[in-house]
Amino acid sequence: MEKLAFPNMKPLAGVKLGAVACGINYKDRHDLFMAELEPGTAIAGVFTRSRTAAAPVLWCRENIAGGRVRAIVANAGNANAFTGRHGMETVRETVARAATLMGCPRKQIFVASTGSIGVPFPAETIPDKLPALKKSTKRDNWLTAAKAIMTTDSVPKGASRTTEIDGAPVTINGFGKGTQMISPDMATTLNFVFTDAKIPATVLQKLLSRIIDRTYNCITVEGDTSTNDSLFLCATGKAKHARITSAADPRLRSFATALEDVLRDIAHAIVRDAAGAKKFVAITVTGAASARAARRIGLSIASSTLVKVGLRAANPWGRMIMAVGKCGERANRDELSMTADGVLVASSGYLLDDFDAKRVTRHLKGTELNLGVDVGIGRGRATVWTTDCSVGYG
Amino acid sequence: MEKLAFPNMKPLAGVKLGAVACGINYKDRHDLFMAELEPGTAIAGVFTRSRTAAAPVLWCRENIAGGRVRAIVANAGNANAFTGRHGMETVRETVARAATLMGCPRKQIFVASTGSIGVPFPAETIPDKLPALKKSTKRDNWLTAAKAIMTTDSVPKGASRTTEIDGAPVTINGFGKGTQMISPDMATTLNFVFTDAKIPATVLQKLLSRIIDRTYNCITVEGDTSTNDSLFLCATGKAKHARITSAADPRLRSFATALEDVLRDIAHAIVRDAAGAKKFVAITVTGAASARAARRIGLSIASSTLVKVGLRAANPWGRMIMAVGKCGERANRDELSMTADGVLVASSGYLLDDFDAKRVTRHLKGTELNLGVDVGIGRGRATVWTTDCSVGYG
Repeated sequence: MEKLAFPNMKPLAGVKLGAVACGINYKDRHDLFMAELEPGTAIAGVFTRSRTAAAPVLWCRENIAGGRVRAIVANAGNANAFTGRHGMETVRETVARAATLMGCPRKQIFVASTGSIGVPFPAETIPDKLPALKKSTKRDNWLTAAKAIMTTDSVPKGASRTTEIDGAPVTINGFGKGTQMISPDMATTLNFVFTDAKIPATVLQKLLSRIIDRTYNCITVEGDTSTNDSLFLCATGKAKHARITSAADPRLRSFATALEDVLRDIAHAIVRDAAGAKKFVAITVTGAASARAARRIGLSIASSTLVKVGLRAANPWGRMIMAVGKCGERANRDELSMTADGVLVASSGYLLDDFDAKRVTRHLKGTELNLGVDVGIGRGRATVWTTDCSVGYG
Repeated sequence: MEKLAFPNMKPLAGVKLGAVACGINYKDRHDLFMAELEPGTAIAGVFTRSRTAAAPVLWCRENIAGGRVRAIVANAGNANAFTGRHGMETVRETVARAATLMGCPRKQIFVASTGSIGVPFPAETIPDKLPALKKSTKRDNWLTAAKAIMTTDSVPKGASRTTEIDGAPVTINGFGKGTQMISPDMATTLNFVFTDAKIPATVLQKLLSRIIDRTYNCITVEGDTSTNDSLFLCATGKAKHARITSAADPRLRSFATALEDVLRDIAHAIVRDAAGAKKFVAITVTGAASARAARRIGLSIASSTLVKVGLRAANPWGRMIMAVGKCGERANRDELSMTADGVLVASSGYLLDDFDAKRVTRHLKGTELNLGVDVGIGRGRATVWTTDCSVGYG
């Protein structure tokens, strides 16, 4: 499958990005990043629902409702997860010193970590680097920032869109990282998205929560959810449109579409960088009881090891039926149908014996797969994205 | 890891077993089996909760509450799953002809299939073989029957115990099959268990439902649940004890223990035969909110691909924490502890830096692993059993 190239990011007022080498795990590379936001920037976020979430996630969950941000600090190489109370103390120290540096309340500082779980996190390394980190920030420094958070990633991952609100041009730029432990529950991996739109935090959060269910929450690689999944969405308010006060405002329509495009692009870039995987697989589930049911059925198929092995053998059908059945959502066993590249291969609950097997096999042996499943219950639909087996399967 | 040898099965009055070759998928081997039970035999059963269950499962779910059985017919090589309405018609024809042959109501005939999903099931093959199949049955024909249901199994799987009820000797014999799609939801694979105890169906069902949650529902290989999982428990009533009328009867205590032993033995034999797996892994979860929560946490760890890969690398700890967190059950992040072979490796929410790493690594590199996780919430505990990666991961 094709990996996605890092795009040309449009300039975006109100954001400065910087990175330095702090050496927690890597040598001779940037591994600590800061986003510096102008006063008045709104923030929304989604975080892993893991019950064993990393220390920085606990801080962000607690403070995101404040809705204001002056800086985000993130490191790669150590997840600060399963680091006990010490890990949390380090987060508090980082936040306190960054707040002093920025001259803002602590609750306007957000943090994220990615890397190994269960490795002691050094207490002073990040706090001590903050002054140099702040000095490194500059405008339009996107690629530097995206590279600083890479761990097992083979490529930096980003997306950019320009759109308009009420006639005024608006930009959305985002980047993310991740190749493993990809099975999001509210978000996945580390992701930083910025816009110059003038949208308050409550409206941003509503938009984000809606869109995340159709993007990040529709990807899976091996079905395992990380302890550190975080996505931040910051709006600097520098665009020249009138203030928006409701997520239902029709002037937000094209912005919402552009935001969904950005999130989907980064989510796809993550799937396409899954270590060792060869196929990018889109699975569209229709006929489910609801969109949520369709997504659950899709993810059940997409995260099944046996289905993945079946995809490599170009014969996933029986295993897909198994995965539909096991997830607990309603399905009409005797009305199920399935397609590959639009070709009907199963209908009325059994495999057809006269479908174009040559065309279907050619499609399944390719690297970009489009599979469809209709479960014959209602009108719920969802598309999810996954890979065939990855190197993580040993 | 060691595979379990087929045991010496004790004689058991009231059961005759037989097998013939019907050639649905295999050549020159027995692949169709019948258990013939004497009039008055009680039956209980557990079946996959899959929403796309195979045709024979639908029949059994509908009729198990009748509580009486004269024959069970099972074939290997074709699961009769995803075979649409035709598959169900074949089941009805098999049941009707077997009922005529046995001179009993149809609802006293049970059926099971195992093998490929989505392959058309021949309508007449099994019904036509029934007279020869019935002629083949004889007492104490256990190994023949256990072999007739094998598919990807490398060894036949069985277990036997003798115990007593109210002073009278009682025997329990069982056999099962399965190496793939092992993640039970009420039962797994095909399993046939017989006893000469005199226990009515309702009591049998209560005992079975309780024990299944501590045996079959505690094993997983790759987290995928089959469309055909079935376990039948038949009681011929030939033992010389007084009738039992309640599952709470204290005279059942040693019988319940023996039954749990038989079910656990067969469940373990299935895990130990997982294709390509090298390690048999027992994971004991303690400190959970309830036994059910402990089981869910255990299965979340046991079915995680990344944990399995971590086991092969003798470093599963961070991934185990991830799996505890993702399953949604309550866990105290800062009180978590973990053990390997009884050695404490993590405590108070972080990895210890002074545990006996040499001993732990030696244990993890072995083939019989005992891991412990305490989640620091309550008194719920459960042990689950799994493998490292299997060949199914491709």
